[in-house]
Amino acid sequence: MNAHTFSVLLAGGVGSRFWPVSRALRPKQLLDLFGEGPMLRRTFERVSDLAPPERTIVVTSGSLAPAVRALLPEVPPDRILAEPSGKNTAPAIAWAATVARRLDPDATLMVLPADHHIADVPAFRATLQRALAHAHDHLVTIGIVPTHPETGFGYIQRGAAHADGARFSFAFGGAGAYRVAAFAEKPDLATAARYLAGGEHLWNAGMFFMRADLYLAELARHRPALAAQITAADDVLAVWSELESISIDYAVMERSDRILVVPGSFGWSDVGSWRSLTDHARGPSYHHGDVIELDGRDNVLFAEHGLVATVGVSDLVVVHTADATLVCPRDAAQRTREIVQALERAGRKDLL
Amino acid sequence: MNAHTFSVLLAGGVGSRFWPVSRALRPKQLLDLFGEGPMLRRTFERVSDLAPPERTIVVTSGSLAPAVRALLPEVPPDRILAEPSGKNTAPAIAWAATVARRLDPDATLMVLPADHHIADVPAFRATLQRALAHAHDHLVTIGIVPTHPETGFGYIQRGAAHADGARFSFAFGGAGAYRVAAFAEKPDLATAARYLAGGEHLWNAGMFFMRADLYLAELARHRPALAAQITAADDVLAVWSELESISIDYAVMERSDRILVVPGSFGWSDVGSWRSLTDHARGPSYHHGDVIELDGRDNVLFAEHGLVATVGVSDLVVVHTADATLVCPRDAAQRTREIVQALERAGRKDLL
Repeated sequence: MNAHTFSVLLAGGVGSRFWPVSRALRPKQLLDLFGEGPMLRRTFERVSDLAPPERTIVVTSGSLAPAVRALLPEVPPDRILAEPSGKNTAPAIAWAATVARRLDPDATLMVLPADHHIADVPAFRATLQRALAHAHDHLVTIGIVPTHPETGFGYIQRGAAHADGARFSFAFGGAGAYRVAAFAEKPDLATAARYLAGGEHLWNAGMFFMRADLYLAELARHRPALAAQITAADDVLAVWSELESISIDYAVMERSDRILVVPGSFGWSDVGSWRSLTDHARGPSYHHGDVIELDGRDNVLFAEHGLVATVGVSDLVVVHTADATLVCPRDAAQRTREIVQALERAGRKDLL
Repeated sequence: MNAHTFSVLLAGGVGSRFWPVSRALRPKQLLDLFGEGPMLRRTFERVSDLAPPERTIVVTSGSLAPAVRALLPEVPPDRILAEPSGKNTAPAIAWAATVARRLDPDATLMVLPADHHIADVPAFRATLQRALAHAHDHLVTIGIVPTHPETGFGYIQRGAAHADGARFSFAFGGAGAYRVAAFAEKPDLATAARYLAGGEHLWNAGMFFMRADLYLAELARHRPALAAQITAADDVLAVWSELESISIDYAVMERSDRILVVPGSFGWSDVGSWRSLTDHARGPSYHHGDVIELDGRDNVLFAEHGLVATVGVSDLVVVHTADATLVCPRDAAQRTREIVQALERAGRKDLL
């Protein structure tokens, strides 16, 4: 839609929550958990008409860069930025912003995590376009309309409707853009329930839309040392180890007065654990691959290859890979991390 | 102890209850479920000083015979009897009896299932010797002293002490031999509890001790057609398909008046399901192979290779093989059969 639009795909995650399918060199964003292709590839494809390969920038880690290049052969290799170490999102996006701005002084960034799932792609794209419509002079984030009282996410409380937003709301058939009243930390359950009932709180989904130069200017305003290190360097890699590790939320979004939030509702999931392969309603089990389930429900049954067979069990996660099987309660699926930690303590590199 | 003693190892089972470790060509008796060697091999070794390889007879199926020969290379190949089809225990033991009697007219048989587990081998061997002491003129069976109100087994109610038995009871330091008051079918739980409290009922463990010619004579008396077919044949295989399929219990033991039972208590298990790898008390989990268990108990966790990792689950069976994972409740482990049946219906020969 706009020849200045760049996608910035954040693909540096090292998540251990999808063990045993995810491993150190095969983290979540490289996996095909939903049977529709690896999540990074899907993220690229969902927006590639807005940001073609030559306007796609991927930020990943050095160890994952070869796999990322293999997965996105269309993207010019110099658009794949390999971080020597994880520095959180503010430096990663700043590096991408300098690269984009060098290619196009009017570059506008769509910053998208590469490990999220989106069920309703048309609704997602409509929301994207609403967000982009404000990105010329604001830092825009998407706030997901909550579907349940989630305690695992940060929230964004929307404030007054933005004037331009009302116009675009009409044009795109949905709510427009809002000022941000407050950012809120992960709530307890009672607070999350109140947020859900109140209708003003949205999930912080980590998606950002803004001109590259505006982001760098706002970073320079609120985190001047960090911005100076990155923009002054001939080679960002040369100064990387000295950079502050800080999130864009903390460095810029929670401090800037140029923020807007665009509500969206498009079957979004951050795919935070095996639990998230099912929705939050009780119901039939989730099956991936070759599965036989007798007399069970509310299971997540995942056969990377081979067969998962269950009889008479419910509310479980069961994952089979060639060299490992994981079993844990569906509603405590984040405890997979404890297994990974035990493997790390035991030095079991063969399984990490 | 006696140069006329032959072991007859019954190794024809096709059990599906240990799927996915057990497969059609690798049934329970060929598996190493306890980390002490395949059960058939262990059965052979437990009695090989009483019945050396040349006095060992194995009855198995045609499809399993190659694996049996490989597992027992010391046993002369002509002692490994390959049934063309399953005919239950009475014909199998009659065939073994004719083979043994041809080798030694005074042959005495120890008939032992090859797929049972025995925790206390010295106590088992003492019981064997008590049983053999009566085998010159009786059909002797071992009755296991119950440890819990099991509803899955047939029971033997002992009657009066046998006169000779009192003498051997003294000699071998334990209860001797008893007449059999009655054989009882699998009971309901209330009846099983009454049996346990009463102290007269023993589990029928399918072990028999008797002269080969006495067994054939008793079979001729109670099942004359079957006995005649087997003893008259030059080659039992030639008549095999015509033989009646019937258990030794039904054909002989429940009808003969030459029966004695010797009580035994030696940590016996028929290894009827994954459940049976643990005892019937609640307690820590059973682990086989590479297992990480966090925050769980009363599980049976079995890694044939690779790793089984659980967190926050209890009372489950989890089995990992390279091509399949099974999960079921520990106390419903016999439902593994339902998985096997589903695979059969689906024609999944790769997993059977």
